Amino acid sequence: MSERPVSGDAGPGGTRAGRRGIVSRRQLLAGTGLASAVLAGAAMPGGVSAATQPAAELVGTGTAVPFHGRYQSGITTPEQAHLVFAAFDVTAVGSSGLAGLLSTWTAAAARLTSGLPVAGASGQFAPPPDTGEALGLAPSRLTLTIGFGPGLFDQRFGLGPHRPEALVDLPAFAGDALDPDRSGGDLCVQACADDAQVAVHAIHNLTRLALGSATVRYLQSGFGRAASAGRAQPAPRNLLGFHDGTNNLVAADSAAMDRFVWVDGATGPSWMAGGTYLVSRRIRTHLEAWDRSTLDDQEQTIGRAKDSGAPLGSKRATDPVDLSALGPDGQPLIPTHAHIRVAAPASNAGQAILRRGYSFIDGIDPVTGELDAGLFFICFQKDPRKQFVPIQQALSERDALVQYLEPTGSAIFACPPGITAGQTWGQGLL
Amino acid sequence: MSERPVSGDAGPGGTRAGRRGIVSRRQLLAGTGLASAVLAGAAMPGGVSAATQPAAELVGTGTAVPFHGRYQSGITTPEQAHLVFAAFDVTAVGSSGLAGLLSTWTAAAARLTSGLPVAGASGQFAPPPDTGEALGLAPSRLTLTIGFGPGLFDQRFGLGPHRPEALVDLPAFAGDALDPDRSGGDLCVQACADDAQVAVHAIHNLTRLALGSATVRYLQSGFGRAASAGRAQPAPRNLLGFHDGTNNLVAADSAAMDRFVWVDGATGPSWMAGGTYLVSRRIRTHLEAWDRSTLDDQEQTIGRAKDSGAPLGSKRATDPVDLSALGPDGQPLIPTHAHIRVAAPASNAGQAILRRGYSFIDGIDPVTGELDAGLFFICFQKDPRKQFVPIQQALSERDALVQYLEPTGSAIFACPPGITAGQTWGQGLL
Repeated sequence: MSERPVSGDAGPGGTRAGRRGIVSRRQLLAGTGLASAVLAGAAMPGGVSAATQPAAELVGTGTAVPFHGRYQSGITTPEQAHLVFAAFDVTAVGSSGLAGLLSTWTAAAARLTSGLPVAGASGQFAPPPDTGEALGLAPSRLTLTIGFGPGLFDQRFGLGPHRPEALVDLPAFAGDALDPDRSGGDLCVQACADDAQVAVHAIHNLTRLALGSATVRYLQSGFGRAASAGRAQPAPRNLLGFHDGTNNLVAADSAAMDRFVWVDGATGPSWMAGGTYLVSRRIRTHLEAWDRSTLDDQEQTIGRAKDSGAPLGSKRATDPVDLSALGPDGQPLIPTHAHIRVAAPASNAGQAILRRGYSFIDGIDPVTGELDAGLFFICFQKDPRKQFVPIQQALSERDALVQYLEPTGSAIFACPPGITAGQTWGQGLL
Repeated sequence: MSERPVSGDAGPGGTRAGRRGIVSRRQLLAGTGLASAVLAGAAMPGGVSAATQPAAELVGTGTAVPFHGRYQSGITTPEQAHLVFAAFDVTAVGSSGLAGLLSTWTAAAARLTSGLPVAGASGQFAPPPDTGEALGLAPSRLTLTIGFGPGLFDQRFGLGPHRPEALVDLPAFAGDALDPDRSGGDLCVQACADDAQVAVHAIHNLTRLALGSATVRYLQSGFGRAASAGRAQPAPRNLLGFHDGTNNLVAADSAAMDRFVWVDGATGPSWMAGGTYLVSRRIRTHLEAWDRSTLDDQEQTIGRAKDSGAPLGSKRATDPVDLSALGPDGQPLIPTHAHIRVAAPASNAGQAILRRGYSFIDGIDPVTGELDAGLFFICFQKDPRKQFVPIQQALSERDALVQYLEPTGSAIFACPPGITAGQTWGQGLL
């Protein structure tokens, strides 16, 4: 089977580094056929080993996002058009079983994000090592981001002493209607790409490589962030019809990322330095009720004009949110329970999170017949105890929007730092 | 709320024809607020009234596909990247109720496919007439295609005498594992667009406009046809990893469309002349089993090389399929039970169908934990009794591929002909 057309692949002969890569990973991918493969790093177009990741990667369906770097990609990477998020339950035995899975996945992820199949041809009478549906497709800015859930630190793998204090079990929030089958997970992989099939292909292959080591607990597809490619304003609209993310942290602002997103030496265990915490929430939106509310109701609920995205009382979406502004009637222009007031850093001791969610539509609710649609909310932060948890507690108690929302899934994961060529996801932990 | 940026909208004043359009449709859209809207046809950029549809529309996310024409769009339109397919149960009473729904939908569909919201602003204290999530997005080649299911011809609407003979109740096929909640429907709307959010927005709004007249029976999202935009070869790959559609009818071949797709005066009732019959099948694919089969097994099952797409024994995907070719061992190069042999026109009395399906991934099977993924098969034809039904009977009994497939949904619809500005979907019937 031919490789996908990405320049810079050194081919079967490869470089010395490439050949070493083959040897070390052949054992990990035993049985999946790796004859002509060149793996991870040295021979790979996107395989940079730069200490820092560029503030803004190239945009476009044809490009590859570097897999290696100080931080994992898919966090500050400008949002791609499509999401496939998968949570896994680990079935491998012991820490060596877990390490084997992570090594296999790392090698595959380095290739997939570069636009290469999991491995080259394995011969006519073996199962193809790659399922094949992305052959011929561009890398499409695919990113694969791994996270470790609380379950990974139970007694199975001896990792209990290494559980970060910030990897808390999320408390119950008012209004939660969580489905355990859409919540939690020992591991997660967030796949984002500008081509839906490229993201599906990546999760399909990682699922297959996990055979005997992990099973999919749940899987969520998402869409709707195409307009944000390159972080152009205005922000894309969610299924409520409002711009979503206007006041979000700017991923290209490295000072803000250092302050709010990246774990540093002072925050937690050393293996998490350069990592971050991911919280996901599957938030079903009762669109039927929302769609019947008046424009005024909707705007008072959000705190912005629907058309322009401007904070109420302002003109442009990019105008700063002035929570103290009063209208002629002496009442706040941004209502007391408006979503953007309750969510604002100024209402939350200055705390903020980097949001990176996607809209979803999963058919209809089999009981009510209403659309099963909404927002698969994903956020990244340095310490959920100071960021997501108190912000969400405030939102669940005071945000006017919650009457339209039904959180049906919830999870938290520790995303380890980025790696360089030859390293393995989470190797600082295992 | 501002209109989406499409040139040619005559605005609130509009043309005389535009103003007439407002008056006639205001009644139909009563309560949804239509103050500044310009509807259907005369003032609309894509609202051509050409008697024939161009053989190949422009490609690109920014363009609009003409809504009006001899045939409905979304049938021979080059495949867009995304699908949202919705089936509805009609709850409206009597033929006037049904006609009202179809009129409302037609007016909305003409605007939506042109990149316009359902209607313009309706004021601060009314629900917005459009849900808003496509504001600012390009038309994205959105097409909306309507179909009438067998249920529409029962006693409710007095349409029984007009049921086309070709609109058969599909027989049971070997291997069917149909979920009634994913099958059938009084009406269907196939929404296809190059931007997933544009397709979702269209179905979201049509669903909302159907309030009190119809409810969603099921809804299916699909992806994976991006590579076929413009009908470039090779055909896109399905989740089996094989090129899918290589030997499909060519939609730009008007002689083939006349022969196999469009209903003519001789085929059926006059209201269906220029229409076609849609058959949809939700075909879950057992990827775990398929992915573990050898490359040789897979290629013998399909009858093509996985990498190149060439028929076995040939070199290029576009090489004609020679079913009589024998290998050195005297056996057919394309095996007796190969998918492309059993499906070929030569094996089916010369009959063919126009396939237009999309891949899907709907999370995991809650019982087995396997991926709930596969192909949402859609095909169009002049007469299902001579085309889909016998072809599918042959496939279900002899196609080697069926061991990996599980049809979980099935439906048939009569798609009426296209309309000109001022006409309503199905007006020849009602």
